[in-house]
Amino acid sequence: MSEKGSERPGRPPSGDGRNRDRILAAARHEFAAKGFRGATMRSIAAAAGVDVALLAHYFGNKDGLFAATLQLPGQAVQQVQGAFDGPVGELGERLARAYLSLWEDPGLAGSLRATVASALAHEGAREQLRELLTAALPEDVHSLLPGDDPDLRLGLALNHLFGIALGRHLLRLPPLADRDLPTLLAAIAPTVQHYLTGPLGRSVEPATT
Amino acid sequence: MSEKGSERPGRPPSGDGRNRDRILAAARHEFAAKGFRGATMRSIAAAAGVDVALLAHYFGNKDGLFAATLQLPGQAVQQVQGAFDGPVGELGERLARAYLSLWEDPGLAGSLRATVASALAHEGAREQLRELLTAALPEDVHSLLPGDDPDLRLGLALNHLFGIALGRHLLRLPPLADRDLPTLLAAIAPTVQHYLTGPLGRSVEPATT
Repeated sequence: MSEKGSERPGRPPSGDGRNRDRILAAARHEFAAKGFRGATMRSIAAAAGVDVALLAHYFGNKDGLFAATLQLPGQAVQQVQGAFDGPVGELGERLARAYLSLWEDPGLAGSLRATVASALAHEGAREQLRELLTAALPEDVHSLLPGDDPDLRLGLALNHLFGIALGRHLLRLPPLADRDLPTLLAAIAPTVQHYLTGPLGRSVEPATT
Repeated sequence: MSEKGSERPGRPPSGDGRNRDRILAAARHEFAAKGFRGATMRSIAAAAGVDVALLAHYFGNKDGLFAATLQLPGQAVQQVQGAFDGPVGELGERLARAYLSLWEDPGLAGSLRATVASALAHEGAREQLRELLTAALPEDVHSLLPGDDPDLRLGLALNHLFGIALGRHLLRLPPLADRDLPTLLAAIAPTVQHYLTGPLGRSVEPATT
């Protein structure tokens, strides 16, 4: 929760948190622009306008700093977790909306793009990226889903949303990047619902809405 | 077509093509490991075991070399294009199978992974990555699809397949990476079909098979 509101312009945390957030923002930018190997503690400190010793103080080393850039702000985790409250028959729509809305948030979008781009290019960071994908799931999520392979259901649903976010915000594939969010949500929510609760591997059920 | 069979172990092209393919393989590896900025013409030449002048001869400069690493082999283009032949009601299944099979091909998978990882991290390469996604589409593809927003239909279908390939082969999300291809195809083919020909934005039709 200490990161609540981090990187929201106009709402800078005070004191320690402010320096920490400034370092994280600079690190995301440097990792995205130069890759994990190309970015250095020194170049990140310079971009953040702080002494390199402060980076070591907060994050230990470059691995620790990189791991910290992959943390979702507590606010974002809550937003996705909140989508699991409500009728399971509309979970696909709520989850798609909550997840894709994160990527439309001007305070978050830049760091999500930078984080995902650098993590995809850095083999050592993929474990952390996998954790990021599932970080916002409630602990009892499996009990909400049909018993036939709930792992695959969740994997397909989350991976599909991740792929849509990549296509819209990172790759900027024109039809995905140009349409408004409601159009996109209307098109993909039934699919996410199908992955979560439909008859996998046989046919696709009509959506409930 | 000159790249047919490139990077297939045991079937090295002869003469010029062989050097060119060796440079491309080294370049994909260097770009993936060090990023576009970190990799140099010199380091790629060294990895390929050729003189750096040969890189300039074939590809001009680093931009030209990078663009060349993003070309799909002619064989792969043909495989995806072939999926468009046949009843449109089963296009989703054929397209999913053709596309995901590329990523299972031991002669192609390594270079696809390396290419996509470095292109996602390199902002200047995303235009080329977008072209790669649509390179294998037949010219008359729009005439096969319903008239309501065929661009969005194709974008959603191709982006979904790209996302699944990323999740399975690059991110290695356990449920996607661990299941066999038929299980995965059975789960996603109806979704790809829905995006291509189903009633977008309203509900999901049962698959025809």
